[in-house]
Formats: sequence, structure tokens, C-alpha cells
Amino acid sequence: MPAKNVTQQLIDAHLTLGSLTPDENIALHIDQTLTQDATGTLVMLAVEAMNPNRVQTEVSVQYVDHNLIQSDNKNPDDHLFLRSACRRYGIWYSPPGHGVSHPVHMMHFGKPGKTLAGSDSHTCAAGSLGMLAIGCGGLDVALAMVGEPLHLKMPRVWGVELTGRLPKWVSAKDVILEMLRRHGVKGGLNRIIEYHGPGLEHLSAMDRHVIANMGAELGATTTVFPADRAVRDFLNRYGRGEDFRELTADSGADYDDHDHIDLSQLEPMIAKPTSPGNVVPVSEVAGEDIYQAYIGSSANPAFRDFVIASKMLEGHRVHPGVSFDVNPTSRELLEDLTREGLLNHFIHAGTRIHQAGCNGCIGMGQAPATGRNSLRTVPRNFPGRSGTKEDSVFLCSPETATASAITGVITDPRTLKMECPNVDEPANPAIHRDLLEAPLDSEQAKALGLVKGPNIKSLPELKPLPDTLTLPVLLKAGDNVSTDEILPAGNKVLPFRSNIPEISKFAFTPLDPDFPQRAKELKESNGHAVVAGDNYGQGSSREHAALAPRYLGLRVVAATSFARIHRQNLINYGVLPLTFKNPQDLDSLQTGDVLHLTGLHHALKQTRPLLLTVNGETGRRMEVEHGLSHRNLEAVLAGSLINLFKKQTARRP
Amino acid sequence: MPAKNVTQQLIDAHLTLGSLTPDENIALHIDQTLTQDATGTLVMLAVEAMNPNRVQTEVSVQYVDHNLIQSDNKNPDDHLFLRSACRRYGIWYSPPGHGVSHPVHMMHFGKPGKTLAGSDSHTCAAGSLGMLAIGCGGLDVALAMVGEPLHLKMPRVWGVELTGRLPKWVSAKDVILEMLRRHGVKGGLNRIIEYHGPGLEHLSAMDRHVIANMGAELGATTTVFPADRAVRDFLNRYGRGEDFRELTADSGADYDDHDHIDLSQLEPMIAKPTSPGNVVPVSEVAGEDIYQAYIGSSANPAFRDFVIASKMLEGHRVHPGVSFDVNPTSRELLEDLTREGLLNHFIHAGTRIHQAGCNGCIGMGQAPATGRNSLRTVPRNFPGRSGTKEDSVFLCSPETATASAITGVITDPRTLKMECPNVDEPANPAIHRDLLEAPLDSEQAKALGLVKGPNIKSLPELKPLPDTLTLPVLLKAGDNVSTDEILPAGNKVLPFRSNIPEISKFAFTPLDPDFPQRAKELKESNGHAVVAGDNYGQGSSREHAALAPRYLGLRVVAATSFARIHRQNLINYGVLPLTFKNPQDLDSLQTGDVLHLTGLHHALKQTRPLLLTVNGETGRRMEVEHGLSHRNLEAVLAGSLINLFKKQTARRP
Repeated sequence: MPAKNVTQQLIDAHLTLGSLTPDENIALHIDQTLTQDATGTLVMLAVEAMNPNRVQTEVSVQYVDHNLIQSDNKNPDDHLFLRSACRRYGIWYSPPGHGVSHPVHMMHFGKPGKTLAGSDSHTCAAGSLGMLAIGCGGLDVALAMVGEPLHLKMPRVWGVELTGRLPKWVSAKDVILEMLRRHGVKGGLNRIIEYHGPGLEHLSAMDRHVIANMGAELGATTTVFPADRAVRDFLNRYGRGEDFRELTADSGADYDDHDHIDLSQLEPMIAKPTSPGNVVPVSEVAGEDIYQAYIGSSANPAFRDFVIASKMLEGHRVHPGVSFDVNPTSRELLEDLTREGLLNHFIHAGTRIHQAGCNGCIGMGQAPATGRNSLRTVPRNFPGRSGTKEDSVFLCSPETATASAITGVITDPRTLKMECPNVDEPANPAIHRDLLEAPLDSEQAKALGLVKGPNIKSLPELKPLPDTLTLPVLLKAGDNVSTDEILPAGNKVLPFRSNIPEISKFAFTPLDPDFPQRAKELKESNGHAVVAGDNYGQGSSREHAALAPRYLGLRVVAATSFARIHRQNLINYGVLPLTFKNPQDLDSLQTGDVLHLTGLHHALKQTRPLLLTVNGETGRRMEVEHGLSHRNLEAVLAGSLINLFKKQTARRP
Repeated sequence: MPAKNVTQQLIDAHLTLGSLTPDENIALHIDQTLTQDATGTLVMLAVEAMNPNRVQTEVSVQYVDHNLIQSDNKNPDDHLFLRSACRRYGIWYSPPGHGVSHPVHMMHFGKPGKTLAGSDSHTCAAGSLGMLAIGCGGLDVALAMVGEPLHLKMPRVWGVELTGRLPKWVSAKDVILEMLRRHGVKGGLNRIIEYHGPGLEHLSAMDRHVIANMGAELGATTTVFPADRAVRDFLNRYGRGEDFRELTADSGADYDDHDHIDLSQLEPMIAKPTSPGNVVPVSEVAGEDIYQAYIGSSANPAFRDFVIASKMLEGHRVHPGVSFDVNPTSRELLEDLTREGLLNHFIHAGTRIHQAGCNGCIGMGQAPATGRNSLRTVPRNFPGRSGTKEDSVFLCSPETATASAITGVITDPRTLKMECPNVDEPANPAIHRDLLEAPLDSEQAKALGLVKGPNIKSLPELKPLPDTLTLPVLLKAGDNVSTDEILPAGNKVLPFRSNIPEISKFAFTPLDPDFPQRAKELKESNGHAVVAGDNYGQGSSREHAALAPRYLGLRVVAATSFARIHRQNLINYGVLPLTFKNPQDLDSLQTGDVLHLTGLHHALKQTRPLLLTVNGETGRRMEVEHGLSHRNLEAVLAGSLINLFKKQTARRP
């Protein structure tokens, strides 16, 4: 057996399909799941639709950290719904105000050697503990919760060797910003980043969380650190020493790709607007006025991240006119800061101390003024993500954010006339497991129902694929149609995230305001089709963009090509994605044409293209292809991945 | 000179017009002003329009405590605008996150014997210090800032004698709830409530704040307490002993009306949904499930209010599933709680600790789930004010809210198996005057401009009233038209509060979606008129409902009768309010009719009715009346109260 790196060991131990060869289709057994509230409502509706007695994972946790601004009934109703689903299905519940999912999960549940599937792109942060933690679609997580493996392509493993030790005023955030400077936001695509080398010795588990978290910004499948002394120390500190197991690369293990960072050579870095990949040394932009400094989020959640800011502020005040927003990671962190006398430095200095949660990181409050510079420790600065359309958000370390808050201009912390503060971890950190609600026992749980406010509706039943389809083309779209055009985001639409009938009223409206009405008129028939050009479904991965049109009767999308994630979402919800063998065939199709497909059940299983007939059985013919894997084909035939799961489990003894 | 009560002494010392006889028109010199951000932007735009070199008050303070949720650029842009106005005009600036205006004002600026005009209905809270503090319209406050007196009708003075001492578990909130139980939400109309008697001895200045604050809910013009030992103690504690002056009723002074409360006979009270006047003993509703408990707001801002909750929570946890929202009054309060080790009881128990500010009290977050009970220490529970349309909000003391959070059901705190905690005021409370921005000196200030984001526009210039008007009737409305129909509130419209051209696009749209367009087409002509039935302009006092239609060209509203505040707002912005001498004349008028008024400047000064001609000079005639006081008439003729001010000051040497 060849020597394995940590990633290969983790995958090997969980493989239910395929092998460790890059690009192969593999499936992994999932030990733990993590959901947050913004994606969790749809996950719980999917779980409800699959009707398990109880989740099958070792640990599943539902966090409420995103939609904490309760402007009307929708968010609090969602919270009650999520809590009721936790009680019904045996899931831990972290209530609103307890804290940000990733660091709270690490503290209470993360375990070396385990797999974690999470419906949040920063799930990868748990790689800091020697876990294989993968952010994925809500339906993938729902399936993992009911015991199904997670399907993916085996990524390449990218070994990044760390040597040396970080200088004063330089911290973990600068390491990941350096990675982004070198490799950009696509540098990690189809890769798992594994850090190794002697530089790890001086990086705590929480430092590693900072680095692993923003692996998502490199586009990596996930990031993995070994489970070594730093992980043992972390688990011991949080009273979970028994959960430690050492996990390091086999002697002689290698990686598919390689890089090296000498930590001692790093300096404070900053990502300029409007991409996490737009990284330069802080010194290059020093002196620009700022409107806002911001600490917290899953990208800088550590006690040390807050302590260093607090100690820097001692005896200083925030520059007048600067809004310094402090976003505590969790109740535990807030208590630690309070007990150690560190919270009062923040208050004294004039910061704004917010409820524990994601808050402004995901645009829930704390938007900056128009065109004014905001320095944030968060992971992303895409245009408008802060809430302000014409924003100017920089990403940096807590040291840089705090230094700039004190001076009022972007400041390299090394230029402050100040000793770099020392940080000691709290000897006995606060641990409030009792404030999370533990799963009920099976008997209690079975008797409970789900609590659904007026805006929460069960997922619609989706019918299997008929053998014959006769589908009017309801829309002909161009190239690069984004999921924002298929189902818009924003305040008007997203509050209906738990209500498919309602949210479907917005399907395709940016392209055709009458689409939902026209689709509704056909809903009771066999459904309809959409035809489109290249790269159909690019952009956000939101599943509603597949589910809402499907609810309205969409059965086929025929396009020249598809964006990867949306194509998978279509498949998951039973829509057949077809590509034209001859792309010119698209030109001849128009809205109102009727597509015919016959003998589908047999034809889909053949390797040769399908024959599509346009406008009557004697009409024009064109060849189309589906390229579906066995499992994907089964999902489409069943009408959805949920139906497939139900069909398969019904067969089991 | 007859013996005077405290109210009469305060008024007498500030009178610039009229006498102490109830119902007489009086004017008062104003020493201090208070503005909050929701109303303050329009106030500052009015100040800008009057173009003073500097405010003329002893102290003017702008607080940012309402619109703290920064979902896009609008709120933060408003904050920068307000700060720039403070710097330009010599106003103190309390930045977002510092705290709730009324208690912060009391702590830093309130002075016995002074008058305070505030653009917030709870300005009356400062009566706790022996001030005459009156909540009024934004333009009234703007005028006070530039040195004009405040005009009102002399109210009756209502003496409420307090005797005895509050029992354990009963606190100041229960006193004002008892007043509301007895007298309802109109009990204080046209009255100033003055508390006196031996029961005052055991009520601290902050207890009195609680009682004075919710005088607004009784409909009172304001509430007054004497400046006695409790006030001296308060000012001493906050390092402002030199601002104390004793102010008590003259021996033998009497009141226009009388009431008496024996404090020792009170029990915990609660206002049921959906009115502050809907008060019953807590015991009457005990046992109902709750979703939320909530402490904070200007109605329970005291250190003691938080300490009692904190000590009750020590060793307990919030009932699972209950959201306990803690809204700190100010940075100072948060620091006091932290220093005294009291914040950690809140954290331990699982509360949600929010930024200092008004927050959920004015519907900015913290909305409860649909139909679930929310127990709040805030002053109001009108339907939907929480943000949730079908809400169920109860008003109560911190003791009752906390007891209920622990048990999960509405709970009379006297029934808890717990000693009632003792509260000592902090010996050296935190005082962070340095976190408020002091006015700049005149020379510095003069050089500065106002900072206006893309959504902030100067007030439009309003032209004087012509001598002849020829006005098409653009809208004929029925009875009881509310300001919500004239200019809707809500998320879609109110964000344009600092942008009259933009907000005017919503004028009258609930009655006629085309109104703004039709008005715009006439804007460059002489303008237009609206005719309506009884009680025109009822509801919210928002000034935009007068200013936005005026901006679109409204010159005359002819109605059978007007709601008082909206009529004054129309006058303030130069719209002539006319009533039909013969109400039947309304029946003959239609949209599209053209109204003629000639020789107006002379005719308005006569006591006999005006002659209105309909559709041509030889058309139908009807008599209309204006009933304007001398000052109001001058404002209408000048085109607005702002124009009148400018005209008068131009004349001054």
C-alpha cells in the first residue's frame, strides 16, 4: 500500500465508490452534517420529503447564524421551523444568537478523521481539525443526513509546505491572502489543499481555521490540515480530549501538486475591491481614508483575533467618523472576552458590538456608505455583497483592520507606534453546550410535528419522467443565462425560500415577466421546455433556480452547454438537461415550437443520441445528448433525487 | 404672584407669548433640542434651508439610534449626512451604536429648569429631571434650533400624587402601566402630567424616566417631575453636580386636574395586544406560552432594569425555544454591566445581546414569529409595530419579562421561587462623553460642507402664495383619509425620507397610482388642489405627507374638516387648508373641476369667508374658511414656515 497524505487517508477511510485516482467519480460516507438557516430550510424540507425516522449521521447540526435580522415574521418563523425539524429528526439545534456555524462546530463537534458535508461554502474550515469537510448543495446534505454517500469527482491533492514562523503583526489571514495573491480565485479548482511542513508548529487550530475557511475563495474542493499537537491542544482546551486522534501524512507520502510558503517572509496583505483574489501588500494602499473597520466572521473567528484587536484598542479610541463593527463569533467568545476584561476595551474605544452571528459578512446589516472604504476580516468582497451597491470593501487581518480604525486611514499595523500585543488562549474557555439543544430521543421525537409559519410549505411532489414527452418551448434564451435570471435573488424573492409555490412566481421573470403565468396555464398538461445557448445556469448555485421552474412544469432544458452546478441541480430535481449534437439546431427553434420525445425510458439508456422531433411527429428532427451518469439518469427517471431515494429505500428490507 | 406648580414655573420662565391660562396660544423659548436619525435628516435639511451660521440653542444633540440596520447605502449615507450637519452647525453628534437618545441625553445633557424640544414622541422622558421636554414635529425642532420659540396651546396641568413605596417585584413600569389602565391612551390629551407627593422619595431619576417616557402613550403634552434629591444624586453620579438646581412646586400650588396612586398597592401589570392602554394585572394572563422576551428601549433604559434581569438570570437559563433579546441602552450601560460582572449572566443564560440602540422597539429587527407572544419592556404594542403583521406584543416590566423568559410562559415575578434581587447603582458609572462628538468652533465649522450620499437631496424651494390661484382639482377623496394614504410608510417608501423629489413619487398612490404623474404634468403651472371629506390627514404625524404633495404643486386642500397635526404640517409647508362653510358644497365638486381664488392676499386677512369660484370666473361660487392664526397665515403667504423665518430674519439687523 503506497504512502498516503492526510487527504488520501481521509478519503480512503470513507470511500463507498471509486478510487483515489484524480477525476474519477467517487462517493464518500458522511459522518457529520452542518446546515445554516439560509440553506437549511430547503434542506429540512427535503428531509421531510424523504420522511426518515431519524437522521443517520453521527452528528448533524442546524445553526441559525445568517438570517438574524427579524424585520417581519419570515425569519423568526423559519427559526421555529428549523428547531421543530431538529426535534423531529434528531438534529442538534444552535439557536439564533449562539454564533457562527463553522467555529462553533469546530469547538463542539469537529473530530479528526471524520467527514463533514455542509450546506455552506465555508464548511471547509473544519479541515483545520484534520477533517474532510466539504461545502455542497442542500440536497446533497439532506441525502447525507438520511444516510446516502456524497458523490463527487476525486480532486487532485495540492500539498502546500509551510516553513518558518509568522513575524509580529502578521497572522493567519495574511497566509491565505498570500495564497490568493499567488493563485487567484480559481487556483484551487478541483483540488484539495493540504498544508504540511514545519511551519505548522506555530499555527494554532484556530489559525488553521482561518486558512482553511478561505480555501473556498481559491475555489478548492476543501482544505485539509493534519491532526497534530495543535489539534490535540485545541480539543483538550474545550474539554474534548477524547475526540482527538492523530492523523498525519504517511512517511514518504506525496501530492499531485506542490507549493511552498516561507511564513517568516510574509507581510500584512489586503484584498482590494472587488475580489478576494485582488491581493496586494497593505503598504501599497496605506493612507486611504476609511469609513468602516469590521472584525469577526468565519474567516477570523478566533479568540486571538478579537484579543489582538482589543489590546490594540486599549487606551485608544476609534477614529471619529469611523464605524468599527465588532461581530462576536459566539456566546462563548463573548463570555471569554468579558471575563478577561477585554470587552471593555472595545466599548471604551467606541466600537459597535453586535449580536454573535454572520451579520454583515453576508450582507445582513453593516453595509458601508456609498463608495466609502470598508476594511473587513470577512472572506468575500464581491461587488454589492456588503449590501451597498457601490461598495468598496477590502479584506484583511484583524491587525490591519484595527490599526486602520485607530488612524482613520488604511494602515500597515507594523507602522503603528505600538508593541505587538501578546495573546494567551484562555486557560478555561467558556463552553456552553447546554445552550445548544441536543437531539431528543427517538420515542419523544417521533411524536412531534413540524412547525410551519404561513410562509413555509412542504416541497411539492415531483412526478417521474414519462416515456413520451410533448413539450411546448416556453422560452428561448441566449448564452450565459445566469441563475439570477432564472430565479432572482434579493429582498423581494429570497424571503420565499421556504415556499416553492410562492417563489416560483418569480421564475424567469427577468427574461419574461409573463413566464410564471404562461407556465401555470400549462402546469396540468405534460409540462414545458426551455431552450438556450451556451453556459446555461451560470452564477449562484441556488437550488431554487432548478426547483421553482420544475414546480411550474419544466421537464427539459435543451442548450448548447450548461454550467456545472446548475446542470446538477436540474438533474437532482428531475429536469432532463439535453445538449444539441449540432449546435446550429438551436437557431431553428423558437418559443412556441413543440418538442416530442418518445420511447424515452429505453432511449436514455442507450449510448447513441436521442431523437427530438419538432412540431408534430412528422416534423423536423434533431439529435440531442444527455451524458448522464447512471445515478443521475436514475434521478431524472424517478422525477428527482428525493424520489429516487424513496424508491430505493422502499426496496430495502 | 400665585403659588406655581413645577410645570407652571418652567413655562413661566420660558414664555415669549401668551399666559399660563389653559388653551391659550403660547410660545416658549427653547434651551435644548434633541433629534434622532429617523426624523433628523428632514430636520437637518430644514436647518440647511434656513441657512443659519450656527444653532442658537444652549445645546442641540443629534442621536443616531433608530436606523441602525445598514442593509444598503441609505442608512450609512444618512449617518454621514447627519454628522456633517452637526459639524457644520454646531450640534453634538451621538454616533450609531452609542445608545438611545432619551437616556443618553438625560445622562450627558439634561438640566433641571430647561426646556427641550425633540423630534421624537418620547422626548418627554427628560421630564424626569425637572425639565419641560416636548416631542414635536421636525420643523418645530428645526426652528427651535435656529432660535425661534415653540408654539403650542397652554395645556392643563394634571397633578398626580404618589404615596407609599413600591413592593418587591413591582417597579416604575408598573406605575405608568397603572396610569394607562386607569386613563387609557387619550387620558393625557392636552395635559401636562406633574407627579408630586411623598411617594417620589423612593423613585430614582431613572425610575421617573420610565414613568415620564410613557406619558406619551397617555397622549400627554409632556410629563414633569420636580428636581429634588433624586435628581441631584443622579447628576452627581454622572459628574454633573454643577448642573443641578432645585425645582419644586411652590408651597400651596395647585393643579387643574388631580389623581392619586398609592404605590404600595400596585402589582405587576401588563398591557395586552394591541394597545398600551389595554392593561391588566400580569396574574390575569399568566401561563400563556411565550416566544420572546425583550428588555431595553427608552421605556426601561435604567441600569437597575438590566441588573434586575441579570441577577434573576444568574444560575438559570432562558427557556429553550424562547428568544430573549437584550438591547443595551448605551455603551456606558454595557460597560457598567461588564465591569460589575453582570453581562456574563446574560450570556450564560442564552440571551441575544444586541447593539446599543432602539432596535426592535421601532421595528428594526427582533420581530416575533407569527402569532407568538412577545413580552417587551418597550412603550408601544400597536399592531404590526414589531415588524410582524400578525404579532402579539405585551408591554411589561423587566421583572415580568425576565420571569417569563425563565419559565417559558407569562409569569408574575412574585410567583417565582426566588428572592427579589437588590440593585445598587454603580458607584462610578462609565461616562464616555468623549465618544460623542462635540460641536466644532465657529470658524472651523463655517468652512465645512454637508456630506450628501446619492439619496440625500436639499429641500425644494417653495414659492410664496400668489394673489390669484387657478387650480385644477387633481383628486377628490372621501372621509378619514390618513397620512398613510397621502404618503405611505413602509420599506419601499421611507428609505427616501431624505429625498423629497423621490419620495413624492409615492404621493397619494394608494388612492390613485397616477397621481404623481398627473401632478408632475401640472407642476410648472400654478399647481393643483385636492378636495376631501371629514378628518382629512388623520394618523401618523409624518411631515412628508404635507411636503411631498406640496413639492408636486399642491396649493390648496379644501375639506369638510382636518386632522389637527396634518393641518399644521400643511400650513408649515405653505399649503392653504380650507373648510367648506356649507359642507354640501363638496358633493358638487369633481376631479377635473378648476377652482379660482382671487385677491387672496387681502381676502385671507378678513374675518369673513373667502369666495371660491368653480370652473371659470362666471362659474359656481362657494364660501370657504381658513381659520388661520396670524402666524399660520404668515407662513402660508410666505410659502412655508421656512420661508417665513428667512423673511423675518432678513429684516432683523
